[in-house]
Parts: sequence; C-alpha cells; structure tokens
Amino acid sequence: MGRIFKDRTSVDEALRLFLENISPSGKTEEISLEVCTGRVLAETMVSGRAVPHYRRAAMDGYAVRASDTLGASPSNPIMLQISDHVEEGSSVWVHTGAAVPEGADAVVMVEDTVAAGDIVEIKAQVYPNRNVGQIGEDIRKGDLVFDDGHLLRPCDAAVLASLGLDKVKVFKKPVIAVIPTGDELVSRKKAGDVPPPGIVLETNGLMAALYVDKWGGTPRGIEIVPDNPDSIKKAIELNLDADMILLSGGTSVGKRGHAPEVVALLGELLVHGIGISPGKPTALGIIDDIPVVCLPGFPVAGLVALYFFVRPGIRRLASIPEVPEFILKRRLAAKISSKIGYVNFIRVVFEGDRVRPLAGAKAGALSSVSRADGFVLVPENVEGYEEGEEVDVFLIE
Amino acid sequence: MGRIFKDRTSVDEALRLFLENISPSGKTEEISLEVCTGRVLAETMVSGRAVPHYRRAAMDGYAVRASDTLGASPSNPIMLQISDHVEEGSSVWVHTGAAVPEGADAVVMVEDTVAAGDIVEIKAQVYPNRNVGQIGEDIRKGDLVFDDGHLLRPCDAAVLASLGLDKVKVFKKPVIAVIPTGDELVSRKKAGDVPPPGIVLETNGLMAALYVDKWGGTPRGIEIVPDNPDSIKKAIELNLDADMILLSGGTSVGKRGHAPEVVALLGELLVHGIGISPGKPTALGIIDDIPVVCLPGFPVAGLVALYFFVRPGIRRLASIPEVPEFILKRRLAAKISSKIGYVNFIRVVFEGDRVRPLAGAKAGALSSVSRADGFVLVPENVEGYEEGEEVDVFLIE
Repeated sequence: MGRIFKDRTSVDEALRLFLENISPSGKTEEISLEVCTGRVLAETMVSGRAVPHYRRAAMDGYAVRASDTLGASPSNPIMLQISDHVEEGSSVWVHTGAAVPEGADAVVMVEDTVAAGDIVEIKAQVYPNRNVGQIGEDIRKGDLVFDDGHLLRPCDAAVLASLGLDKVKVFKKPVIAVIPTGDELVSRKKAGDVPPPGIVLETNGLMAALYVDKWGGTPRGIEIVPDNPDSIKKAIELNLDADMILLSGGTSVGKRGHAPEVVALLGELLVHGIGISPGKPTALGIIDDIPVVCLPGFPVAGLVALYFFVRPGIRRLASIPEVPEFILKRRLAAKISSKIGYVNFIRVVFEGDRVRPLAGAKAGALSSVSRADGFVLVPENVEGYEEGEEVDVFLIE
Repeated sequence: MGRIFKDRTSVDEALRLFLENISPSGKTEEISLEVCTGRVLAETMVSGRAVPHYRRAAMDGYAVRASDTLGASPSNPIMLQISDHVEEGSSVWVHTGAAVPEGADAVVMVEDTVAAGDIVEIKAQVYPNRNVGQIGEDIRKGDLVFDDGHLLRPCDAAVLASLGLDKVKVFKKPVIAVIPTGDELVSRKKAGDVPPPGIVLETNGLMAALYVDKWGGTPRGIEIVPDNPDSIKKAIELNLDADMILLSGGTSVGKRGHAPEVVALLGELLVHGIGISPGKPTALGIIDDIPVVCLPGFPVAGLVALYFFVRPGIRRLASIPEVPEFILKRRLAAKISSKIGYVNFIRVVFEGDRVRPLAGAKAGALSSVSRADGFVLVPENVEGYEEGEEVDVFLIE
C-alpha cells in the first residue's frame, strides 16, 4: 500500500531545504547579442572603448570657437564665415552626433542662428564645451558596464553592441527533464480518439515543459513512463545528465505512489508532503546533486508545485537574479475560506476593480486555472479573508 | 535646413491618433500547442469532449455502493469483499483518477479502510457520489473553454490538450520592419574596429528588433539606409508588405531630418513632435494603412518611443489583450526635477526599498538606461517630486 505520509513541511521550510541543495550550474556559453534577451551575463563587462569615441555634437548647429561668440545676442548677432574648418571667425555646420571639428570647442544650436550664403549670424553666446559631448562621456574605456549575473534586456544588448561586441558569455539554460509517469496516461499523439474509461491524455508534462521554457530552462520531454519503481528508476538514471528532473504523477499515497520512494532509493528525499493546498503530495529530493521534484498528478496541484518549487529552482540553477514579484492589490468580491495549516492557493478572476475567488475549484480541474486570471495565497495560520478585504493577487503566467 | 517643428502633441493624444489608425491584422495561423505560450487565440474554443470522459475516482480507496456503508464508523466497521466488480457487499480498489466501476456510486478513501486478504474494513460511512468525479465535471461537451482573443498560458495549453487538441489557431505575429537610417552609421559586422570620428556602430536597430520580439512581433532587420529622401523612400516601399515600419534616426530638425518628410510624402504624417522628454522628435504616420514610427536617433529617446508607441502598436496589431501594467510603489531617495509641458521619463535605480533618480542622465547615453532598473513618469503639468514622495515605478524590460 506504500508509505502513508502524515507529516507535512511548511512551504517556506520546504523551499529553503530544496534551494539549499541546489547550486548554480555555472555552465556558460557564448551567444550572439541578437538572441541575448532574458539571458544572464556570466562575465563582468568592462568597456574596451570610450563611447562616444570622438567629440560629438549634441545639437544640430554650428561648431565654433566659444570665444568668437562673446556678447552675441538676438539684437547683437555676430557674423561668422561658414567653412569646412574652424578657426577664428569661421564655423562649420554639424548635425547631432557628428564629430566636432578640431579647433572648435562649442556648438551653437541651429535655433540661435540664421544662415545666408556662406555667412551665419550667431544670435547667442556659448561657453566652451556647450553642446559638445566629450570622448567617453557616456562610457569611459575601462568602465564597469555590467556585473556578471546581470539579466540582459534589449537596451543592454544595444550598450554592449556600442562597445563593439557581437557575442556575449552567458549562463547556459538549465536542462530540465520532464518525465510523465502513470499507467493511466496515453500520449497526446493519440489525441484524436477519446481514450477508454480510466485512461487520460498526458497533459501535465506539456504544461511543465512550457513553464520550464517560460522560466528560463530548456525542457527535455520524455515519453510516458509506466508507474512502477523499475521503470521510474530507469528513466531517472537516463536523465542524470540533466540539471533538474521533474517526475509528474505518482506522488500520493496508495498503490501507485512510487516516485518519491524511488527518489529516496536513488538519492535523498528531502520533503514529501507540503503544507500547501492543493499541492500537498509534492515531494522534493536530490539524486547525485541533481534536484528532483515529484509533481502531483492533479493538474492544479502540479501547477502549484511548478510555481513554488520548480520556478525558484530553475532561477537558482540559471543564476537568474531576483526581481520584484508582480503583485496587484485588489479587494475581494467575495469571502475566501481557507484550510488552516496549509497555504491555500485560491484562483481568482478580475471583476471590475475587484477579484472574485472561483467557487468550487477542485485540484483535478485545470479548467479552474484556465478560467482564472491570478491567484491569492492565504497563509497557513489564516482562516480566510472577508469580502472587501484587500489581498495580494499574483497573475498566472 | 528642413522643417523646424515647434508644435508638440501630448503623449495621450499622439497615442490615441496612432492607435485609431491601426487595425488588428487579423491574419491567423495554426500552431502546435507546444509553442503556443504567449500567443493569442484566433478562434472561440468550444469543447468537443467531456473532461473527465468517465466517472473518475477523486481519491485512492475502495469503490463501493454507498448504501453498503450505512452506519460504518471506526468503532463499527463494515466488512466488504475485495473484488473485481462492485455489487452488494463487494468493493474494488481504485486509485485517484481511475474509472469508478459500474455499480459503484462512491469511493471510501484509503485512510478510512483496513484491508486484510480479500476483505476490507470500511470505517466511515459515505454518501452517494462521495469522491466520485462525474463525467464532464471539469469541462462539459459544448462548454465555452476560451473566447477568441485569449492570451495562451502554459496551463491553457494543457487544458486544450486535454480536449484532444494538438494544434490551435492563433493570430500571426505582426512583421515589424526595422530600418536604421543615417550616413553616420556603420554595421555591427564591422564592430571589431573602432570607427572613425563621426561614424558610430548601428545599435538602435538591434535594440528595436529585440523589443519587437519581446513584445510579440517578428522583427525584420534591414540594412542601414543612407540619410536621403530617395533611399528612405525606397526602403519604405520595399517594406510595405510588413505590418508596421520603424525608421530609426533622422527625425529631428536640421539638414538630415528626412524620415518624417518622406512619411508625409508617401502617406499621412499624424504627429511630429511629442510632449515627452526624451523622445520629443518622435513622428507617427500611416502609409497604405501601414503604421510607421520614426524613432529618434538618440538611444534613450528611441527607447521611449518604442515603449510609448511601438509596444501598444504591436499589441493592437496582434490583438494582444490588455493586462494590468506592472507598477511598483516606491519612495524617492532624491528629488526629481521635471520639464513642464512634457511627460518626463526619469530613469531610476533601486536603493534598498527606495528608488534613486539617475542624475545627469542624457538622452544620448543609453548606458543611463542600462544602469537603471526602471523608470518614473512625471506628468506634463507636474514640476517634479520631492525626496520621500511615493511614485509609480515601471521596470525596464
């Protein structure tokens, strides 16, 4: 009948234990700047160049010797020759971004000038360096541009490109093996036919793989594995080259809860049974330094385990820096009742400027998630929230 | 010398005019569920199946006739035969998710049973339908599962897979042509050498392409186009099969501000000069129903135009539904001064639980963005914010 687990570990403690056993993979690769968005720098970037690398006009206008403009004003314009070089009494047209010619030390913006033929009237006095961007004004040679561990955004790619770089060294995406287990499962390749009673299409593995991809891992999809210890053991052993292994299904008590016991056999079972609802049957372990998550087969419980353990696990493996969580403050359109002793994962839908908890949403009904916009977490020691109370809403990605 | 634009349109009015001229592309394609994350459904999904498609055990335990358990309790267990079918006095072991056999109308959970040989002690009374998931309990045949226009998440892919679907019809990603213009630009392919004074590496086009990709478009990269009306005209005409055209550079006054005038020549220039700083020289237009954005060449100004106009434009073209903006509330670690008459885009860095505005951040210095974590917008009619004031912070993606 298998082990009946009565104990449960709190979410925080379970996550702490799990992350404590995960080290950043540290594997790196060189990639093109054209595909670097969302990747994490594996090296400190020090600029090998000055940006700009020349004295740059900051405005369209005339490059001049500032001393030539002394006293210039609309009522007392000063005439300068328009030329191809700057010396006393002459000026050169420059557009924004152009090199300021030798001899010039300022740019008079076009709005303060009137040109006629090869003469320009200067109607404003400028001081030295006015409208001139100095060499290295943006980035000096030798400046620290990014620390390693920086999460690259498109604007960062442009900065790196301006330094003359084409490739960048980043941490590899961790490979996450997704192993669906269960005798009751049939591949989606046979999705055309409605399966016989008791047999269901494999969908949790698809969901896990798509979340892994979204969160910065590379999913490795595995064929469905029958629900017996030998087959599960073999599937795990074949995937010990991955950075993390997810076993979907087979975590609960009963004749077929084999996944956690196989983890215990091959390595260390850190936690089995977590104070979250749904998601209690989740198990966490380590085999040969590879973190393993046993995801409950009930799809909503599986989703909860993905959010609470797989996502932070991937972030740790991939050295993805912490970012503020996207939390919305909303008032409840109806009360929430919650099970004491468990963090309760309550699905909610937006309703005007409030959120409404989905009534009767069961752990087996993934449609309750797909109908939901977000979720509210009720802590272990809270019985629920009243209608009108303000709660933190997490969007479902 | 080109047209000098003195007028400016407010950001809201400019965006309204721009979006008013953009229709969703409506083009669709069929894609595999395995790559559907982030895509937008182009059809209403009505279930062709019931989920579950059989009566499903919601717990591990024994399938029974509820009437056989009448009065059962720990002190007064009722004995049932363990069998392979259910009739009066007999029961069948079922695991969670298994089919509940004909004849049974309830499942007694394993925790309330003790099995010995082919007899099981039932220690709790159950009512009909207890622990039995009915056919269609999750999704009934004919149920509306998703409206068209729904943004697909991994959990939604799993729901569609459970309905026996393998592919799904979504809106095509709009193709966004990115045309860098400027005689001063040199391709990043020559990034190895520091260019001569006055010549800079093309990086704004790279940034634009990566943001387009991030925001749900397909960037089409174009070679650098020289800064003259004929070349720009030709480049636009070659890309009128795209869904949107971005011209980077050449928007300001002066000898080389050709992009907006070419837009006016080929189509309609809606706006040139917007009340945002940086970003004032941004121009918006329409050519043959194709929206065109002229991005300022100063990189921060270009980024602002991407955020404020290109992002909503792509969302409209791609029918991406509105989602709440990710805004953090933070107090200022220093005051912000702002230019009246313009929405000011102020770059900020996190500093503990506050944000600090980046001092002296110029529009030409993209490094001021790459050093920033987010931005604060100061409205047109506000002179700035005091130290300690709470502001809305948008993360830079």
